Amino acid sequence: MKPILAIACCALLAAVIVRAQSPSAPQWYKVVFDLTTDDPQDQTAVLRWLREVASANPRSEMEVVMYGRGLALVVSGRSALTDDVAQALARPHVSFKVCEIAMRNQKVDKSQLLANVATVPDGIGEIVTRQKEGWGYIKVVAH
Amino acid sequence: MKPILAIACCALLAAVIVRAQSPSAPQWYKVVFDLTTDDPQDQTAVLRWLREVASANPRSEMEVVMYGRGLALVVSGRSALTDDVAQALARPHVSFKVCEIAMRNQKVDKSQLLANVATVPDGIGEIVTRQKEGWGYIKVVAH
Amino acid sequence: MKPILAIACCALLAAVIVRAQSPSAPQWYKVVFDLTTDDPQDQTAVLRWLREVASANPRSEMEVVMYGRGLALVVSGRSALTDDVAQALARPHVSFKVCEIAMRNQKVDKSQLLANVATVPDGIGEIVTRQKEGWGYIKVVAH
Repeated sequence: MKPILAIACCALLAAVIVRAQSPSAPQWYKVVFDLTTDDPQDQTAVLRWLREVASANPRSEMEVVMYGRGLALVVSGRSALTDDVAQALARPHVSFKVCEIAMRNQKVDKSQLLANVATVPDGIGEIVTRQKEGWGYIKVVAH
Repeated sequence: MKPILAIACCALLAAVIVRAQSPSAPQWYKVVFDLTTDDPQDQTAVLRWLREVASANPRSEMEVVMYGRGLALVVSGRSALTDDVAQALARPHVSFKVCEIAMRNQKVDKSQLLANVATVPDGIGEIVTRQKEGWGYIKVVAH
Repeated sequence: MKPILAIACCALLAAVIVRAQSPSAPQWYKVVFDLTTDDPQDQTAVLRWLREVASANPRSEMEVVMYGRGLALVVSGRSALTDDVAQALARPHVSFKVCEIAMRNQKVDKSQLLANVATVPDGIGEIVTRQKEGWGYIKVVAH
């Protein structure tokens, strides 16, 4: 083996070893948060987690799916955290999606949702789809 | 290219585009619900979700796995929602499965379970198996 | 076919049939528990589940990831279940991992953690990684 090739091999091996030894290296990932309560502790928790995941891994993609009582976080007049929701949605890879079935049940119209909050026909179906696509799943419970 | 072939290609392309543009098209899926509380709000929530998923996607397969305090929903004399459980189980693709470890812990015999409620040797193992099989996972929390 | 070969084939076939007929046969699996509350019922539940999964399937691998209020279970002076945590960690395939972001938020130093409790740079990232690796996911809620 020529010296230059041997050096290249050693460098590659070293890189692999270093890589294997740094499991804490920041990596980006995709995660869907499932919010089904209107508990203020759960609401502030998911907003904090969005901030923290984004600051640790700016490329991470995050989606908050709300159904049941989870809607309260993004309905105008019911949400106590409208500024925090706006700040979360200003980040590049964050989306909030509300279940349209839950909206019909609770007589909430799209016009009542905070700016840039999206809707999906079926919140549970959205989460199951994301899981099938390989996204991580986190149930939001902090109370 | 012959005209008939060109038309066929266009039709196929159009179908693909329409498909891609209708994410709200009803699709069926498989989902396992994890119930570990006896909170009435959690119990009514999971029964409502079963109804809603079934009415949106009649072919969807749903399984409710109960362990810990989750058993209360399907134990005769303890459940306040026996009619709703029976209605849920009357649907074609719905099953309720109780953890036998939890049953032993709580001295619940199979004869005390509501009609058509099944048991599994290990509730957590059942959920993990479903996840490995590609089922979606939803933790039931609504209180 | 020689008699010895025929007998071997029958034995193999019988083994396959028995295997297929015993879905309750203890199987080992990998599961990550997500703990984000300091509720005593949630804490005792996850410790009981670790015991039960291990006694049903001694080869099963279990990991408890704690962030948010979940830290309380393993912080010296705050945990009411230090003996149970030590017993859980004495098992061969059990690990407890605390989110370092949550530790910084709550001004908890590594020296305050119970013996053999590990840390991870990002608790949510740890869970998402495990899910991608094919581990089952259980959100701990029992209250």
